[in-house]
Amino acid sequence: MEFTAQTIADFLKGSIEGNPLEKVNNISRIEEGTKGTLAFIANPKYEKYIYTTGASIVLVNKDLKLDKKISPTLIRVEDAYQAFASLLNLYTSQLPQKKGIDPNSYISDTASYGKDCYIGAFTFLGDHATVGNNVKIYPQVYVGDNVAVGDNTILYPGVKIYKDCVVGKNCILHASTVVGSDGFGFAPGEGTYQKIPQIGNVIIEDDVETGSNVSIDRATIGSTILRKGTKLDNLIQIAHNVEIGENTVVVAQAGIAGSTKIGKNCMIAAQAGIVGHLTIADDVKIGAQSGVANSLKNKGEIVLGSPAHNFSETKRSMIIYKKLPEMYSRLNELEKKLNELRENNT
Amino acid sequence: MEFTAQTIADFLKGSIEGNPLEKVNNISRIEEGTKGTLAFIANPKYEKYIYTTGASIVLVNKDLKLDKKISPTLIRVEDAYQAFASLLNLYTSQLPQKKGIDPNSYISDTASYGKDCYIGAFTFLGDHATVGNNVKIYPQVYVGDNVAVGDNTILYPGVKIYKDCVVGKNCILHASTVVGSDGFGFAPGEGTYQKIPQIGNVIIEDDVETGSNVSIDRATIGSTILRKGTKLDNLIQIAHNVEIGENTVVVAQAGIAGSTKIGKNCMIAAQAGIVGHLTIADDVKIGAQSGVANSLKNKGEIVLGSPAHNFSETKRSMIIYKKLPEMYSRLNELEKKLNELRENNT
Amino acid sequence: MEFTAQTIADFLKGSIEGNPLEKVNNISRIEEGTKGTLAFIANPKYEKYIYTTGASIVLVNKDLKLDKKISPTLIRVEDAYQAFASLLNLYTSQLPQKKGIDPNSYISDTASYGKDCYIGAFTFLGDHATVGNNVKIYPQVYVGDNVAVGDNTILYPGVKIYKDCVVGKNCILHASTVVGSDGFGFAPGEGTYQKIPQIGNVIIEDDVETGSNVSIDRATIGSTILRKGTKLDNLIQIAHNVEIGENTVVVAQAGIAGSTKIGKNCMIAAQAGIVGHLTIADDVKIGAQSGVANSLKNKGEIVLGSPAHNFSETKRSMIIYKKLPEMYSRLNELEKKLNELRENNT
Repeated sequence: MEFTAQTIADFLKGSIEGNPLEKVNNISRIEEGTKGTLAFIANPKYEKYIYTTGASIVLVNKDLKLDKKISPTLIRVEDAYQAFASLLNLYTSQLPQKKGIDPNSYISDTASYGKDCYIGAFTFLGDHATVGNNVKIYPQVYVGDNVAVGDNTILYPGVKIYKDCVVGKNCILHASTVVGSDGFGFAPGEGTYQKIPQIGNVIIEDDVETGSNVSIDRATIGSTILRKGTKLDNLIQIAHNVEIGENTVVVAQAGIAGSTKIGKNCMIAAQAGIVGHLTIADDVKIGAQSGVANSLKNKGEIVLGSPAHNFSETKRSMIIYKKLPEMYSRLNELEKKLNELRENNT
Repeated sequence: MEFTAQTIADFLKGSIEGNPLEKVNNISRIEEGTKGTLAFIANPKYEKYIYTTGASIVLVNKDLKLDKKISPTLIRVEDAYQAFASLLNLYTSQLPQKKGIDPNSYISDTASYGKDCYIGAFTFLGDHATVGNNVKIYPQVYVGDNVAVGDNTILYPGVKIYKDCVVGKNCILHASTVVGSDGFGFAPGEGTYQKIPQIGNVIIEDDVETGSNVSIDRATIGSTILRKGTKLDNLIQIAHNVEIGENTVVVAQAGIAGSTKIGKNCMIAAQAGIVGHLTIADDVKIGAQSGVANSLKNKGEIVLGSPAHNFSETKRSMIIYKKLPEMYSRLNELEKKLNELRENNT
Repeated sequence: MEFTAQTIADFLKGSIEGNPLEKVNNISRIEEGTKGTLAFIANPKYEKYIYTTGASIVLVNKDLKLDKKISPTLIRVEDAYQAFASLLNLYTSQLPQKKGIDPNSYISDTASYGKDCYIGAFTFLGDHATVGNNVKIYPQVYVGDNVAVGDNTILYPGVKIYKDCVVGKNCILHASTVVGSDGFGFAPGEGTYQKIPQIGNVIIEDDVETGSNVSIDRATIGSTILRKGTKLDNLIQIAHNVEIGENTVVVAQAGIAGSTKIGKNCMIAAQAGIVGHLTIADDVKIGAQSGVANSLKNKGEIVLGSPAHNFSETKRSMIIYKKLPEMYSRLNELEKKLNELRENNT
């Protein structure tokens, strides 16, 4: 399929700078663009490529300033990243969809599923599992007893959902992610540990996406909850009874310990850790590799470091940290000179 | 099923404060307690809920002090957490158990299994694999050639155990955990690396529990060993030839590098890392996100930080770290004033 | 099978010190060596065991110095670690190999595979997947549509490869590793996020090995690339559009964020994190738990810390960090004394 700049600009409600009849039939990265492809620029780091790209059409933000003449046709839009996302979503929605129930799957007599589902080979649906309409379950997925999966959700190969857990509508769970494994609860005895059975579940609300190899433990009692619109990256640890607020984003390899409650619209960067039994306010941002040891009660707070602390103060401490050896020498020197002065003064 | 406070107190050897005939038929979290449910308090953080909970019965520690009148019936016991664990274990032991060999599993002619086992769909038992009595192997598990699995062990969906590894009795391995993948061993050559074949195995002794998505590498030669009673959380890295002592606890996303030997009853907190070829004494505690670069030879030592160091000293350094910009200014100021003084003195 | 010191020395082009007729039939760790076994010493930490080992033959570096008489026969070689690797590779190449197509696998009519392959039970080969000669695909692996797998590659149980990805020749992917899951791309809207479809792929070149539970995301557009000879340990995060240069080594639990380009022959230690959109030069070494926030443009640079900085300077700062409380007291003391002096001087 081929599209003109005019067709794309109309779809995106953007304005054209260049040739409205310029045609593209594929998508490229701006730095690797070739004739016949459409690229985009959202990150200023990549603006320099506008002068060298071979792409025929480039999607850019309305306010992009140019220093010299360029060869591609531009389509200017309010938000180039969002516009690009819309185009890609249009493109992928037209790809052929997996459908049908593979005879090599196992579906319990008491399980049910809706219209237009795909259930792949070697996938297991347990007793009383309920799967909505248009759900795509790839091969080798485990859907335990009494699990509910909402409409339009995609479970990629090897996802494992333990019994009694709930996954909402329009969710995407990537390969080998585990939902509902036991929380890490042990009562210390005399040198050994007694297991605390974990009888709660996990509730994943609508529009949630998790990456691959994520671990989301079931609650001891009650539910571990990912609220509507939560986005988790890969290899993340969500402990028992954690609750994550709507539209909060958690980046790769971060971990959240038991019973901590995270607000809405938070951003938890990669490899950060949050201690258990804390409360994190809405709109909080936690820097990469931070270690949060106390509740963060101020909406919109930004923290960094291990232990995590005010972002800009920590940034300053990080700069001085590099000067520690110098500071130490200067301190020694000062003491020496001061002592000399004191001796001279007596 | 319904139980009276009297029945529960008798089972737990606790004392009743309130109505011995109070009835419960379910379990709740103290902060979400409703009529007809039993809750418990072990963590002092949750004591405040005793005055507002709707739970009918609350399990508490013997010595809990009350400031005002409460509505639930109390059962006082020596250790509320352990007592609660006992109740939950009683409850879960009465749930129906998975049983039987699913015809969609693959079991080698030379593999064997004991009485009362469950072997789920799409599970693979390799040549000469031996599985004990009452073992529950969920769907999509891989048990390689010559693997031995002891009585009463549970392997959750997607667990992968490579050939020649040994799993003891009463163990629980959660979903997608990998036992026996190759250790990370390469001999550097001229710009490339030559693989060191890993011909050892993994031995998991009795009463071990691992979380989900854990990686436990086989030994180069000999065995990687998790001793009796070890508890691992999710997403943990155990490298080749590591040995973890009895009843040691390792929390989520921690990693232990090759050939390191950890003592008994240690506690390794989340996201900590331990360098290879070290020895860690018994009863050592390692704080979250710590980086242990040297052997810890003192029993009961507590360390924190990266690199890890004495816990309370590191705590003090962490506090001063926040004051680094202030210290830097004060140091500059001091030098200026001292120089003025010296000039005046000459 | 039994081998004499002479046979082994001939194979390794080493020289014998002791009895050329000494025989071994197994391999042991130097500290656990018993009669009839061969051990090796490459790490100086283990040299002390040469005096106590029960091993019959020990492989050592040419230049190993002995303080006193020893009992085993030595074989001295240029590089004991490499020589040992060669021996182990000889040993494992003679083990029986898995072969044949398990009837419990699912292979699309349009998929193809070469000679001497093993395709295990419950493994899925999608439409137009192509698998080379002598490829070993263990049970429960997912090979998506249009995936290509090169000759002699091993995919261990539970590996998941999404559609359109490419795996080269002589690769090893360990259990539950995921190749080609969606990159973490969302365009922020009004409080919610719009998914950016990830239409690129992953290309793994020849001679790459990854550990277990690794996550390698597909590119948004274009390819995420692991170049020839890359070695990844367990539980590693490789984000979309990352490119890793030839023969670079990444140790367990490290993470690399989106679009970052790593050079050749780099060494990224355990639990390190690298921010997105950076460039890392060839031969760079990044210490364990480091957080790299800026491009590293100097070939062979060595960095440490979070944020990462020159290795030896960071080491010095780490030492002074422990003295921060002491420095703080001394600073207070200095100010007090200086003020006294100034008062006396007025």
